Amino acid sequence: MSGYLTYESSGVNIEANDEMVERIKGSVGSTFGPRVMDLHGGFAGLFSLEDSEKFAKNYKNPVLVSCTDGVGTKVLLAKDMGRFDTVGQDLVAMSVNDMIVLGAEPLFFLDYLAADKLKPEKVAVLVEGIASACREAGCSLIGGETAEMPGIYAKDDFDMAGFAVGVVEKDRIVKGQSAEPGDVIIGLSSSGVHSNGYSLVRNICFNKARLTLDSRIDSLGAKKLGDVLLEPTKLYVKPVLAVLEELAAVSEVKAMAHITGGGLAGNIPRVLPENSKAVIERNSWDKPDIFPFLQKTGPVEESEMYRVFNMGIGFVMVLSPQKADRAVEILSENGEKAWKIGNIREGSREVVIK
Amino acid sequence: MSGYLTYESSGVNIEANDEMVERIKGSVGSTFGPRVMDLHGGFAGLFSLEDSEKFAKNYKNPVLVSCTDGVGTKVLLAKDMGRFDTVGQDLVAMSVNDMIVLGAEPLFFLDYLAADKLKPEKVAVLVEGIASACREAGCSLIGGETAEMPGIYAKDDFDMAGFAVGVVEKDRIVKGQSAEPGDVIIGLSSSGVHSNGYSLVRNICFNKARLTLDSRIDSLGAKKLGDVLLEPTKLYVKPVLAVLEELAAVSEVKAMAHITGGGLAGNIPRVLPENSKAVIERNSWDKPDIFPFLQKTGPVEESEMYRVFNMGIGFVMVLSPQKADRAVEILSENGEKAWKIGNIREGSREVVIK
Repeated sequence: MSGYLTYESSGVNIEANDEMVERIKGSVGSTFGPRVMDLHGGFAGLFSLEDSEKFAKNYKNPVLVSCTDGVGTKVLLAKDMGRFDTVGQDLVAMSVNDMIVLGAEPLFFLDYLAADKLKPEKVAVLVEGIASACREAGCSLIGGETAEMPGIYAKDDFDMAGFAVGVVEKDRIVKGQSAEPGDVIIGLSSSGVHSNGYSLVRNICFNKARLTLDSRIDSLGAKKLGDVLLEPTKLYVKPVLAVLEELAAVSEVKAMAHITGGGLAGNIPRVLPENSKAVIERNSWDKPDIFPFLQKTGPVEESEMYRVFNMGIGFVMVLSPQKADRAVEILSENGEKAWKIGNIREGSREVVIK
Repeated sequence: MSGYLTYESSGVNIEANDEMVERIKGSVGSTFGPRVMDLHGGFAGLFSLEDSEKFAKNYKNPVLVSCTDGVGTKVLLAKDMGRFDTVGQDLVAMSVNDMIVLGAEPLFFLDYLAADKLKPEKVAVLVEGIASACREAGCSLIGGETAEMPGIYAKDDFDMAGFAVGVVEKDRIVKGQSAEPGDVIIGLSSSGVHSNGYSLVRNICFNKARLTLDSRIDSLGAKKLGDVLLEPTKLYVKPVLAVLEELAAVSEVKAMAHITGGGLAGNIPRVLPENSKAVIERNSWDKPDIFPFLQKTGPVEESEMYRVFNMGIGFVMVLSPQKADRAVEILSENGEKAWKIGNIREGSREVVIK
């Protein structure tokens, strides 16, 4: 052994990186649509917006819509469960569900994964989760970065960030400013906690109630608590774009909101015009069992539950009363459970939960 | 005190988040160009690609070019130095320098910041660093996410990821495939280690040589070692776009590479056509003092230095011999030190450093 220092002897494993790239190639390639351009070099991902008859769909006055998000402390649950196939969908959903609020269609996605050590088999499962969600959302996974940083992340810890870019025709942006008293609020079902409120979830389940990830709770069915909590965030792209396809051109979709941190009360006002409020009927939809369980186990006050969690509604759309039933129908045809959960009334940009 | 659990009592500080948003507003707004659309709601950033005479520049067959990167363990140096004004530029530079390799012009940028606790004043300094680099690179900071994750990041630790989108006209993409024997390789000066190789740097300086961040080294001048190592990655956008402006339309810029992990030897072959190699004259440029210092202190073999570090060349451009002098001149007019450092010859996609 010489006295010389090398990069490899300083802890950087170049072979593991090559193996990882090899393993994720198939997942990544499976997401490519016709506008992805494949260039050697790999410095960047390329996506053509060229207006050409060779593409089924073109854009006249394209506005790019871009979002970034992580999945918060849900990555800790994934690590503790040793289960990495679900959080990729959370990552994609957090960004693309934000994007469709404006009426945009997702085009492409990039991910950033950082960990203490990059284990190729773990990264492959995470990336296939991301790729699978990209396929469902109709967007291409055209880039990503993996970073090995043992000084920052503790053993087996990791974090991930996602970036999505979409497009909407300028005259079809859903701005939310045309919602008016009498309009109907449609709620789309969530799959559970999605990706927000996990600090409170952890406090309730593990700190206060001393449950474990392996606990089985009668009211939650046969699944382990950890698996119930890892249930991935729903992707609303397909059903929402189907509604927009039919109704956005005639401006019948007035406003939309992705229900994340802050719940219905925190997210709906973001897209309401002045002088209006949202009145929500709390008994108008089916709530996933996890919410009554968390509320009772805490205990957590009902109002706090609505301020922190989605309470079973992951996305809302506001439509004129003439079009609301048709929208629910289209959503249902596209596999999405949806209910009319309230109305817009005169008020001061608040949400009243009755 | 009631027995009820709340989000706030579970460790989530909503006020700190509001203060942070307030503090970064000015930095973020200062980056906006005329194509940024300001919509209430904040679910996403909007960037218009509309073809309109109201914009100074329009795009006929736009190809979007997208990159993501972090700054690796350089964030640890920033934390240890308690200095957060420089790594924002590293973050922006890592992505936009990759993008211009294809001839693309940066349009917008988004950032992801995650930490144990979000300290508004620290985030404000980090974001102003990002915003300042975005202004220099001519791109708009249209979105970002900050995540507070005490379970993942240890006290005062943080990580960041950046995401850039740019555009290039389809017929002006610099593909690298037209480089041919006789073409000249121009090297653009780096400011130091940039954002790659810090695992080896830390091993040399702190593990082997037992130096500290506060050490002052004669050959490195008056600065503390920590400040020399934190020197931000150079932004090559302005000088490179100036060369492209004059020479790309006539396809005189044959290939480009951003010199990151892997050094000259690892990055130049990524953009070379088959049957060609790059021959680099190692004494043709001035090397920043940090490299001889690291090499001697390690010690590190010269060949390993060239495999890990940029060795003073952060970006290369390949041009015909007829245009190389003019390119150096344009770079110099735009404040960039550049040298003719080698040639393309017949060979098998390798880099020979003579």
